[in-house]
Amino acid sequence: MPRTVEILQSYGVGDDLLRKGHRAYFFCNYNYDPATAGIKFSSKLQGINEPTAQHKCCILHHQGFIESLLLSGLLQAGVKVERACKPVKMALSEDESEFDNPKAYPVKLVLEHAAAAPGTPSTEAVRAKFVVGADGAHSWVRRTLDIAMEGDSTSRVWGAIDFTPLPSSTFPDWRNIATVNARDAGLMLIPREDGKVRLYIELGTEDALPRDARGRPDTSGLSPAALLDIARGVFKPYTLETRPEDVEWWTAYIVGQRVAARFAEKRRVFIVGDACHTHSPKGGQGMNVSISDGHNLAWKIAHVLKSWSPMSLLDTYEAERRPFAQELIAFDRWYAEGFSAKARAKLVADTADGAGVALPGPLEAFLSFSAITTGVGIHYAASAITSPTSSPEPGAAAPGPFALMPGKRVPPHALVRVADRRPLTLQDALPADGRARLLVFSGALTGADDAARMVSIERAVKALVDRVWKERFALVVVLARVGDATPYLDVPMGLREDWTSVLVDAVSPFSNESGGAYAALGVPASGQIVVKLEQYLHGWMI
Amino acid sequence: MPRTVEILQSYGVGDDLLRKGHRAYFFCNYNYDPATAGIKFSSKLQGINEPTAQHKCCILHHQGFIESLLLSGLLQAGVKVERACKPVKMALSEDESEFDNPKAYPVKLVLEHAAAAPGTPSTEAVRAKFVVGADGAHSWVRRTLDIAMEGDSTSRVWGAIDFTPLPSSTFPDWRNIATVNARDAGLMLIPREDGKVRLYIELGTEDALPRDARGRPDTSGLSPAALLDIARGVFKPYTLETRPEDVEWWTAYIVGQRVAARFAEKRRVFIVGDACHTHSPKGGQGMNVSISDGHNLAWKIAHVLKSWSPMSLLDTYEAERRPFAQELIAFDRWYAEGFSAKARAKLVADTADGAGVALPGPLEAFLSFSAITTGVGIHYAASAITSPTSSPEPGAAAPGPFALMPGKRVPPHALVRVADRRPLTLQDALPADGRARLLVFSGALTGADDAARMVSIERAVKALVDRVWKERFALVVVLARVGDATPYLDVPMGLREDWTSVLVDAVSPFSNESGGAYAALGVPASGQIVVKLEQYLHGWMI
Repeated sequence: MPRTVEILQSYGVGDDLLRKGHRAYFFCNYNYDPATAGIKFSSKLQGINEPTAQHKCCILHHQGFIESLLLSGLLQAGVKVERACKPVKMALSEDESEFDNPKAYPVKLVLEHAAAAPGTPSTEAVRAKFVVGADGAHSWVRRTLDIAMEGDSTSRVWGAIDFTPLPSSTFPDWRNIATVNARDAGLMLIPREDGKVRLYIELGTEDALPRDARGRPDTSGLSPAALLDIARGVFKPYTLETRPEDVEWWTAYIVGQRVAARFAEKRRVFIVGDACHTHSPKGGQGMNVSISDGHNLAWKIAHVLKSWSPMSLLDTYEAERRPFAQELIAFDRWYAEGFSAKARAKLVADTADGAGVALPGPLEAFLSFSAITTGVGIHYAASAITSPTSSPEPGAAAPGPFALMPGKRVPPHALVRVADRRPLTLQDALPADGRARLLVFSGALTGADDAARMVSIERAVKALVDRVWKERFALVVVLARVGDATPYLDVPMGLREDWTSVLVDAVSPFSNESGGAYAALGVPASGQIVVKLEQYLHGWMI
Repeated sequence: MPRTVEILQSYGVGDDLLRKGHRAYFFCNYNYDPATAGIKFSSKLQGINEPTAQHKCCILHHQGFIESLLLSGLLQAGVKVERACKPVKMALSEDESEFDNPKAYPVKLVLEHAAAAPGTPSTEAVRAKFVVGADGAHSWVRRTLDIAMEGDSTSRVWGAIDFTPLPSSTFPDWRNIATVNARDAGLMLIPREDGKVRLYIELGTEDALPRDARGRPDTSGLSPAALLDIARGVFKPYTLETRPEDVEWWTAYIVGQRVAARFAEKRRVFIVGDACHTHSPKGGQGMNVSISDGHNLAWKIAHVLKSWSPMSLLDTYEAERRPFAQELIAFDRWYAEGFSAKARAKLVADTADGAGVALPGPLEAFLSFSAITTGVGIHYAASAITSPTSSPEPGAAAPGPFALMPGKRVPPHALVRVADRRPLTLQDALPADGRARLLVFSGALTGADDAARMVSIERAVKALVDRVWKERFALVVVLARVGDATPYLDVPMGLREDWTSVLVDAVSPFSNESGGAYAALGVPASGQIVVKLEQYLHGWMI
């Protein structure tokens, strides 16, 4: 999803995803047609239409690949992930004063090394400043903290299978995202890299499954052949042809629609991703939301460790992500409704005349939630780090989609870099390197008057940064306009120590025509300074 | 240069260059101004303006990086390059009949391993089918074959130095390509990746240098500090500030403007790159032309080895690349003239009134040769592999820049892939994988009549490919238009076995409006089949 691509890009690990991922531009919908007792094409819509999404498509690659991007980014930073190592015991300090001290190690853990060399101990006791449980739907960390999952008690069973269809398969939309609703079953098709596809096949509620000896739903009777048989039934009258050797992977699993009651314990132990929210795979949200959780939490822990922020900053993680997870579950319930047996039954009843109408729009549902599902429209509530210091003028127009707003991500508005005229976006100038940014919208620089004004801006910025924060902040200068003959040297040196951070609103390397950046970002032509923490904005005028 | 980027992309190794290279959009010119006795800004022009160049900029990275792209591409293909290994003896077979047999090994070589393990022999005798001397201006292969270099006997000395300028340096165009002509010296500035720059500094003819004991020009008196001092003199009144630790690399070398009398011996030993042509670095051509040489030769050797082509195919290497090298030298002479001491003297004389005019346009010279310098306009003469089988209609309009022409490269016209609506260019569908292509411009596919016609095209193509060549050819289908509701399945299966090779002329993923591809490519609306070898076109109508 677009926001996830932005996050990976901001860490410098997104390029391979852009290069190798499959791009899905369209979402298709096929529904049951009583006239033929098979499915029929219903609609095809542009899947991503958020104006601020830089790529108007979903970019798809399997989870192992995304993990390899993150692992290689970590390796470049000198961090090696240890596998075959899991916590088996966790206890928090009984000395309450330790929790307020960011230098303390108040979490005691026992780790078990599954692959310990013979003769070396297989367990290891460690003390940690922070623990993050990114350990999935069955999270050990969550259970150890005794955090309840709140939500639906009935759970649905999904099959997932990855394979390459043969060209002789007659279903026409293998390379688009598709929701397919037959009379008795439904599935979702996600095209993958290298011509593969993934199907998510709804297998009913867990009550429909036999129970194993311990009373748990038993998926062991399932197989790739069984899943493909169900899918073939759904696709009729179209065909799905594949060979056993073209099946790459399959699974079956039970999902609830649940959110953890808490995301954190004593500001020291956190849970992220599937450990704190589970939902159906249909919205394509699982990994996307989980990566956003991690991105939200990581910089906050870093700022606390560097003594740049008080421990209370960490409270904003749950305050921001838990309401978002709840919104997502609400979406998931509504969206999944379009696939349910009840909805299918209603469809059949409603269309007794055989006309074959569409279900009440799962695609439209997806698109109406697209600020959430794409991730680019997430808007966190006001807090210590998201309150604006100024209010909009009375009678001012509503902010447009690109407007800089406290609590929203900085949008990727197109700009041009002054020194080399390279086109880029405002986001490209804001890598997630741990530093906050002073975005200096300094107005136009076209003549001697402007040059003099720039010098006073340089002085103001220097005073501000020297006084308040120093190493935490990097500058990004966005000029409203430069003249065709404006020398780059007219930007005062204090504002251009890093030539890559001086940008201008222009439509192309070869033209100084304005691309309307100031107006779109909601910045007055006279200029503004905007303070940006990792994901948030505070704003005030200079 | 654009054509080199295309070639690297076609081998699947260009993405990292696009990602990490510096992009230079402008070429600047600074000339001597007698009024101030310093340089003065003269002109700034868009550097790459060839309409068919996909990136309108030069993309710059150092040679070691480009080599690493090629090496990693080779590694992925299972080829490891042996270093510290050089030929010391080469002899061609005395049995003439061997030369006509592509399975024979008529070249005997003795290789010397500089890093042989103690106790193992340091030399090794091998027999080769083919030998390619890519061994630089002092080519051992060329000398062993006794091939003369033809051209200028006087040679110029250039210094080259890589460094990072400090932000306090006042020269305004570090991030653009710049030619700078002072009164007594001149230089060329090439911005590099990561904020570095390279300067090529003209140091005069080799006669100006002292001689060493063996009578060769002696560059040992030079140093980075000496080169930077000369450069500082050229840049006046602007400053160049850098620290010794910011100097990355430097060299001084002598270049002639020479072309080898032959590029091959007995269709078995070839020379490429600097081994067959040397010229000044000012056109930025050295590595570009050399990579093109290799690309031109490689597929021909492959086709001969696979018995797809007679040995005579190899004659086209010299027939195509040597005239091109000669054209390049002609350009280099004209271009270098703008930097010469004589031109500078003339400038000073002409501008005795102190007005400070531009030299007779080195930038304009560069741009007027841009079909050659960018590489995208190279047009090889007619030959067995480049002759058209049809002539233009009398009175037909002159072909536009995107027109498919025998002897020119296939241009990267924008298209959309039918199955997933991904935007790409015609070149993206033509990777350099050793296979030739049948480009099937099949006309529109919007209704039942078209679908029937497509079936007859499928039959014709199948007959053609089965009869003439089979494994050598892959299909690429370019539809003129599809209807908004045209099912992908209407493309007959024989034309869509590879879904990634079915394209359509459309402006975006979301619109079927024509991008004018057929007209621009010079293909009739009724359709055409075009046969493409690695770089060339034959065309005929169906």
